[in-house]
Amino acid sequence: MPSKGRVCLAYSGGLDTSTILRWCINEGYEVVAFCANVGQEEDWEAVEKKALALGAERMVIQDLQKEFVDEIVFRAIQCNAIFEDRYLLGTSLARPIIARAQVRVAKQYNCDILSHGCTGKGNDQVRFELAWKALAPGVKVLAPWRIPEFIQKFQGRNDLLAYAKEQGIPVSSTPKAPWSMDENLVHCSYEAGILEKPDLTPPKELWKMTVDPLDAPDKPYHFTIHFEKGIPTKIETEDGKVVTESLALFKLLNKIGHDNGVGRVDLVENRFIGLKSRGCYDTPGLTIARLAHLDLEGLVLDGKVRELRDQFVSLSWSRQLYNGMYFSPEREFVENSIIFSQENVNGLVRMMVYKGAAYVVGRSSETSNLYSEEDASMDSLETFSPQDATGFININAIRLQKFGEAKMAAGKPLDA
Amino acid sequence: MPSKGRVCLAYSGGLDTSTILRWCINEGYEVVAFCANVGQEEDWEAVEKKALALGAERMVIQDLQKEFVDEIVFRAIQCNAIFEDRYLLGTSLARPIIARAQVRVAKQYNCDILSHGCTGKGNDQVRFELAWKALAPGVKVLAPWRIPEFIQKFQGRNDLLAYAKEQGIPVSSTPKAPWSMDENLVHCSYEAGILEKPDLTPPKELWKMTVDPLDAPDKPYHFTIHFEKGIPTKIETEDGKVVTESLALFKLLNKIGHDNGVGRVDLVENRFIGLKSRGCYDTPGLTIARLAHLDLEGLVLDGKVRELRDQFVSLSWSRQLYNGMYFSPEREFVENSIIFSQENVNGLVRMMVYKGAAYVVGRSSETSNLYSEEDASMDSLETFSPQDATGFININAIRLQKFGEAKMAAGKPLDA
Amino acid sequence: MPSKGRVCLAYSGGLDTSTILRWCINEGYEVVAFCANVGQEEDWEAVEKKALALGAERMVIQDLQKEFVDEIVFRAIQCNAIFEDRYLLGTSLARPIIARAQVRVAKQYNCDILSHGCTGKGNDQVRFELAWKALAPGVKVLAPWRIPEFIQKFQGRNDLLAYAKEQGIPVSSTPKAPWSMDENLVHCSYEAGILEKPDLTPPKELWKMTVDPLDAPDKPYHFTIHFEKGIPTKIETEDGKVVTESLALFKLLNKIGHDNGVGRVDLVENRFIGLKSRGCYDTPGLTIARLAHLDLEGLVLDGKVRELRDQFVSLSWSRQLYNGMYFSPEREFVENSIIFSQENVNGLVRMMVYKGAAYVVGRSSETSNLYSEEDASMDSLETFSPQDATGFININAIRLQKFGEAKMAAGKPLDA
Amino acid sequence: MPSKGRVCLAYSGGLDTSTILRWCINEGYEVVAFCANVGQEEDWEAVEKKALALGAERMVIQDLQKEFVDEIVFRAIQCNAIFEDRYLLGTSLARPIIARAQVRVAKQYNCDILSHGCTGKGNDQVRFELAWKALAPGVKVLAPWRIPEFIQKFQGRNDLLAYAKEQGIPVSSTPKAPWSMDENLVHCSYEAGILEKPDLTPPKELWKMTVDPLDAPDKPYHFTIHFEKGIPTKIETEDGKVVTESLALFKLLNKIGHDNGVGRVDLVENRFIGLKSRGCYDTPGLTIARLAHLDLEGLVLDGKVRELRDQFVSLSWSRQLYNGMYFSPEREFVENSIIFSQENVNGLVRMMVYKGAAYVVGRSSETSNLYSEEDASMDSLETFSPQDATGFININAIRLQKFGEAKMAAGKPLDA
Repeated sequence: MPSKGRVCLAYSGGLDTSTILRWCINEGYEVVAFCANVGQEEDWEAVEKKALALGAERMVIQDLQKEFVDEIVFRAIQCNAIFEDRYLLGTSLARPIIARAQVRVAKQYNCDILSHGCTGKGNDQVRFELAWKALAPGVKVLAPWRIPEFIQKFQGRNDLLAYAKEQGIPVSSTPKAPWSMDENLVHCSYEAGILEKPDLTPPKELWKMTVDPLDAPDKPYHFTIHFEKGIPTKIETEDGKVVTESLALFKLLNKIGHDNGVGRVDLVENRFIGLKSRGCYDTPGLTIARLAHLDLEGLVLDGKVRELRDQFVSLSWSRQLYNGMYFSPEREFVENSIIFSQENVNGLVRMMVYKGAAYVVGRSSETSNLYSEEDASMDSLETFSPQDATGFININAIRLQKFGEAKMAAGKPLDA
Repeated sequence: MPSKGRVCLAYSGGLDTSTILRWCINEGYEVVAFCANVGQEEDWEAVEKKALALGAERMVIQDLQKEFVDEIVFRAIQCNAIFEDRYLLGTSLARPIIARAQVRVAKQYNCDILSHGCTGKGNDQVRFELAWKALAPGVKVLAPWRIPEFIQKFQGRNDLLAYAKEQGIPVSSTPKAPWSMDENLVHCSYEAGILEKPDLTPPKELWKMTVDPLDAPDKPYHFTIHFEKGIPTKIETEDGKVVTESLALFKLLNKIGHDNGVGRVDLVENRFIGLKSRGCYDTPGLTIARLAHLDLEGLVLDGKVRELRDQFVSLSWSRQLYNGMYFSPEREFVENSIIFSQENVNGLVRMMVYKGAAYVVGRSSETSNLYSEEDASMDSLETFSPQDATGFININAIRLQKFGEAKMAAGKPLDA
Repeated sequence: MPSKGRVCLAYSGGLDTSTILRWCINEGYEVVAFCANVGQEEDWEAVEKKALALGAERMVIQDLQKEFVDEIVFRAIQCNAIFEDRYLLGTSLARPIIARAQVRVAKQYNCDILSHGCTGKGNDQVRFELAWKALAPGVKVLAPWRIPEFIQKFQGRNDLLAYAKEQGIPVSSTPKAPWSMDENLVHCSYEAGILEKPDLTPPKELWKMTVDPLDAPDKPYHFTIHFEKGIPTKIETEDGKVVTESLALFKLLNKIGHDNGVGRVDLVENRFIGLKSRGCYDTPGLTIARLAHLDLEGLVLDGKVRELRDQFVSLSWSRQLYNGMYFSPEREFVENSIIFSQENVNGLVRMMVYKGAAYVVGRSSETSNLYSEEDASMDSLETFSPQDATGFININAIRLQKFGEAKMAAGKPLDA
Repeated sequence: MPSKGRVCLAYSGGLDTSTILRWCINEGYEVVAFCANVGQEEDWEAVEKKALALGAERMVIQDLQKEFVDEIVFRAIQCNAIFEDRYLLGTSLARPIIARAQVRVAKQYNCDILSHGCTGKGNDQVRFELAWKALAPGVKVLAPWRIPEFIQKFQGRNDLLAYAKEQGIPVSSTPKAPWSMDENLVHCSYEAGILEKPDLTPPKELWKMTVDPLDAPDKPYHFTIHFEKGIPTKIETEDGKVVTESLALFKLLNKIGHDNGVGRVDLVENRFIGLKSRGCYDTPGLTIARLAHLDLEGLVLDGKVRELRDQFVSLSWSRQLYNGMYFSPEREFVENSIIFSQENVNGLVRMMVYKGAAYVVGRSSETSNLYSEEDASMDSLETFSPQDATGFININAIRLQKFGEAKMAAGKPLDA
C-alpha cells in the first residue's frame, strides 16, 4: 500500500494520541511523532519507546522550556496578560511554541501533514492549526477528532480501550483521573469529566502544581523579584537563594508558588468557538510574577501610558493568545507596543506568600522611579502650588456645571 | 462684623477640620458643620459636641450608609469596578454620596459656601468640588488648604496643635498614627506619613478593617452569595446566617472578609492630578463580592457582551469614579450600559475564605445559565458538528496564511 | 418522489436565483420564493410571474421599506455608522430586515429550510445565515453555492445560461453588466467582475443612485434637516418641500443626493471572512443625513459622551452590522447605549449640496444647545475666570514636566 | 529700573501681540520676539521692523515649514488623524513645532520667561504651555490674557486701539475681519467674532486657502500620490508635474486642493477646557492626502491591524495633539504603534478633485498588496473551499442560536 502521506503527529504518550498514532498507521500514513517538553512532568523514555512500538518512524522530543519562558511567558508578564479578568492563559501561552517546533520537525522529516489529538469543540485545535497555517501556509491538517469515521469508531473511552487491547497499545495501569489535564511550565489545567458540572467543587487531589493552601506552611515566605524592561531578571529569597537565569528563575517562582498554594482559579470561560467551558487552573509562578510586575508599574510607568496600555494592549494580546492568533500581524502590532511600554520598567519588588495568597510588601527603582516623596507629600509644597488645583477643578467643572444646570432646567436636579 | 457668608463645612471632628471650623469663624463666616455617616467608626455625640463647642451654628450628622450601598457600592459590584487593576475605589465610591448630602444640607440651612478639609494635592478635593459644582452650579467653594494665608499659617502639625491650644480646641489624647486614614463601609485607606516611602512595609497594626491573614482562623469559612441582576441579594453562611437586606448583607460580607484577612492591597497609583501616590487599602466585603460577581458572569453573561463591557464600561466607570466625575453625563451614559448588561446576571456563587484569600468553589443559575454540560462536553456531539470547526479554522486562517506567505517572501519566515 | 423538504428561497428574479429555484425543484424540494422590497428598482409582477413559471409554489413579495428605515437606517444615523472610515454599510443594513421577514414567511408556509443565492466567499451568506440561526434556532440552511455538486455543475455564467436554455428559464435580453449590484433604499453596491481589478476606475455608467458630479446642477441646493433624539423628523427644502414621514423623508434625501451626485465611494475593504474585496457604493441620502447628524451632535452632545460613543459604540455597532451580528446580545447591548446617547440630540441643520459634495451651512437647537456664545466668546469673561486656565494647565503639566526631566536626565532632551 | 526678566514672546505682528510686546516692555521686561514661519502668508520684513520699533531686543524668525511637514503633518497622514470625525487638526499640528523652536530661541538668548498672546478660554494656551513645560521644565510663563490687570486694561478691541495710538503702535489700515484666523501650511482656521453664532453661514470671502467650490474649474483634475511606509513620496499630475521633496509635495497638494475648493469644514467642537466652540477650517492638501492614505490602507493593511489601529491609535494620537499633549509619554507610546503599522503601506493612489470634493479613482501596490483578484473573485475557487464558510458560519452562530433560544424562552422571540 502506498503511503497516504507523512504525518507529523503531536504525540503525548496518552491513550488518545496513541490511538491516533496507530490509527494513522493503519490508515496508511507514515508517522513522525513529536512531543514538546514545555515543562510538563513526563517519562520521556517511556514516551519514545511507546511511540516507536506503535509504529512511529521516529519520536522527536524537544526541550522548548527556555524559549517558552523567554519568548512568551516573559511577554505575558510584561503586559500583565489575563483573559476575562482571571485566567492567566497557561495553555494558550505554550501552544505557539509547540506549534512552531512541530512545523520545524515536519519540515525536517519531510512530513506534508500535521496532526493533533485535540477535540473538535475546544480552543486547542484552533490554536494549533492557526499557528501551523501561518507558519507553513498550504500545510495539510489531519484532525481525527473531526473526521466522521474516526468519531464514529471511537465514541467513548471504552472504544479507545477496546482498540488499545486489539492493537496492543499499552495502557497505563493508573486509573485515569475523571477530568483531563494539560500541564506545562506555567500551569496545569483541569477540565472536562466531572468538572463539566460548574457547581462541583474540584476535589482536593485535583491540583497538581500547588499544595492546598490549608496545607501550606504556617509562616510567610519572603523574596524579592528584580525587573529590567518589565522582565524578571533576578530572584532573591529569604533563605539566600539567588537566581538569574530565566528558566531557573521561573521554576523558582513556580516552586515558591507551589509550596505556598498560590495561583488557583476555578472559573467558567468563553471559548473562541462560542461555547462556555469550565476550567480550573493552578498557575503558581506566573501569578506571583504578574502581581509583582503590576506593582512595579505603579512606581515607574506613566499613568496615561498605563491607561492606554491596559485598555488596548493587555486585553488585545491576551485575547489574541487565547484565540490562537499568535502568528498574526495584529499580535506583532500589539507586541511592538508592549516592548515600547516596558523601556523603563526597572526596579525590584519585595514579595511575601502565605497560605494561598501573594502580597507585595515594598517596591523601589533606582533608575526609573516616577514617584517622588517630595511631590506626593501632603506636607511639602516645594514643587506644587495648591492654587493650581483650584483652576484645574474649575475648568474640569465647566461641563459638569452645564450638565447640572440642564438637569435642573429639565426638572430633574442631580441632588433629587 | 457682618458675616462673610454661611459655610457648610464637611467636618470630621479631627484636628484638621476642627482647626478649619474655628478659623472660619474667626474669619467671619457662619458655619454649619456636616458629617456623613458612611460606615466609619465614630463617636457621633462627641463629634457634635466638639463642633458646637468650636462655634458651629449646628452639627448635621446623616446616616448615608444604605444609599451608599444601594446606589454606588452595588453598582461597583455590577461592573467589577477596579482602578489600575488593583484598587477597588473605596474612597472614590463614597464621595458622591457625601457630596450630595452636603449640598442638600447647605441648601436647607441657606449656606452659599461649601468647604472641605482636603489637601491641595489629592484626589478628594477634586471629587468633592466637581460633585458640588454639578449638583449646585454656581456654589462657592472654600478650600482652606489651597488658600495661601491659611497654608502659611499652618505649615505643619505643630502649627495646628499650637492653634488648638490657643483656641481651646480639644485634641485627642491618643497619639496620631503616622499616616492618614479614610474609613467607610467599603474600605479603610492608609496613606501619607511614613507610607510616603513606597518601599516601607506597612506595620502590622496599620490595618483596621481586616485581621492579619496570619492571625485569621485556621480553617476555611464557607458561604453563598445570591445575585439578581448583578446585585447581591442574599448571603447564606455555613453557620446558618441568612441575610437579605442590602446594608446588613454588605456588613456581613465585611465581617467575613475582616475575620479572614481578605482584601488587603498596597500599591502606588496615579492620581488624577498627575502625581503618583502610595496607598494601602483593606476592602474586605467588596473584594469578596467582586470575585463572586465576576465568577457568576462567567456562567450567565454572553462572551462578546463581556468583552465589550470589560474594555469600555468597567474601565470607564472606574476611572470616572476615581476622577470625581460621578455627576457627569458620561457616567450616566456608561451606567446605562452597566444596568443593561446585568439583566440576566442571576444565580448564586459558593465561596470560601481562608487566611487572606477568597475562593469560588461553585456557581449555578436556575434562570440564566448560558453554560450547557451537553454543549461543553467533549464526549457529546448531539448539538455540535465537529466538522464545522474545520471551516471555522480555515476561514480564520485566511489572513494568517497570507501573513505567513508575506513573511516568507520577505525572507523572514515565521518559523525562523 | 417524496419531497426533500420545503425551502423558502430568497429569490430576486435574476439568473442565479432562478437557476437555484429550478435546481431545487429538480432536486426534489418544494420552494416558496421570497423577495423583500427594500427599495430596489424592480418589476415585481415580472418577478412573481417568473418564479411561478419556474415552479415555485408561491412567490411572496413584502414591502419592508418602512421598517428598514425606521428600525435600522435611522439607527445607523443615530450612531454615525461607518465601516473602515468610509463604507456606510448599505447592504449590511438591509440584511437583518430581509432575513427576519424571510424567517416569518418560512414559518407561515411551513418551510423547514432557508436558502439564498449568495456566494461562498462573501459577507452576505454570513449575514443571512447568522440572522436565520438566531431568529429560528435549528433551521436548516441550503446554500447551493457551497454545495460541491452545484458548484461543479455551474462553473461560470455560461453553465448558467446553458441550464437556463435547457430548463426554459427566461433570461433578460439586456446584457448583464460586467459587475454585480445590490440595490436598496440606502445604496447601490457594485463589485466583482471588472471591478476586481482595484486600479480600474469604475465606468461612468456604473453608478445607479447618483448622477455624475460633473453632470449635477451648476448651482447649490439648500435644505434643512430637523432631528429629534438623533432621528431625522422633517426636511424642508429651498423649493418649499416639507416632508415628515420617515420613508418619504429618507427618499427625499436620496433624491437630493442623487440629483447632486453625493455619496460615491470606491474602496478596498476587509470582509468578515478575511479576504480583501473591492467595492463601489453610492449612498446619497445616508451620506447627507450622517453628516447633518454628526454636525448637530457637535452642538448638543457632551464632549466626553461623544468621545466614549465614538470609540466604542459607533465602531462596535458598525462592525456588528457588517459581520452579520445584528441579532446578537452584543448588538442589543450597544444599541441600548446609542439610544441613551441621543436623548438630547434635538435641533436642525441647514445643508447645501453641490456637484458631488454636501456641506453644513448652519445648525441650531432650541432645547438642547450645549453651546453658549457667552461662554465661547473670547471677549466675554462673565462666566469664566481665565486664571483658572493657569491652574488647569499647570496641573496637566505635572506629568509632562517629569517626562521632560527624565528625558534630559537620559541625555535625550525633548527639544533636541 | 532693573529688568523683571527676559521674555521670549510668540509675536505675530498683529495688534494683540504688538500690544503685549509693548506692555511687557513698559512693565519692565526685556523682550526677544519670536515668530515661526509654518507656512502662513506674511510680510516677514514688516514683522521684524515692527517688533524692533516697539522695543524688542531682537526679532527671531525661523522657517519651520519642512520640519512641520516631515515630523508632524506626515505622521497625521500616517494615522489618518481626525478630531471628532471632522476636524483635521491643522492648528494643533503646528503648535508643537512652534513651541519647540521658541524654547530653543529662549535658551539661545537667555530668556527665562516664555509668553504668548493666546486667550484664556482657548486650546492654544494649553498647547503652548504644556509643550514649553515638557521641553523646559521649570520655565516661567507669562500669559497676559490671564493676568487680571491686563484683562482689566484691555477689555475690548477699542482699548487695544487706544493703547496703540498712545504708544505709537502701527495699526494695519486694512479693517480687521470680524473673526480671527490662524493660518499655517495645513489649514486656515476661522473662529470667534461673527462665527460665534453657530447658525451663521460663513461669508463667501472668509475662506483663504480654498476657492469657493462654485468658482472651481468646471473639469476634474487628476493626479497620483505615491506612498512609502504611509508617507507621501511623490505626486504626479495630469499636466506633467512630478514632485518628490516633502515640503514642495505638500504645497502642491495644497495648491490642487485650493484650486478645486477641497477641504472646507464648518463645525462645533469640544475644546479641551470643556467649552464648545465653533470653527471653520479649510485644509486642502491634508484632506486629499488623508483620503488617499486611507484608501491605500484598504489594499495593503491587514484588517485586524487596521481595526485596532482605528480604535486606539488614530483616536488617541488625534486627541493628544488636540489637547496639547504632543511632548508626552503617551504620544510617544502611540506614535511607536503608528510607525510600526505603516511598514507595508507602500503603493500609489490615483485621485481626482472636482468642485469641492476629492475622489479616489484607483489604487495599486507592487510590493505590499494584500488583495488578490484570484482570492476575491467570486468565480475562482482555486484558493478557497466554500464549504469552509459553512463551518465558519455555524461556529459563529453558536452563541446567536443560544441567544435566540433564550429570547424565545422569555417569550420575546427575535422575529416578533
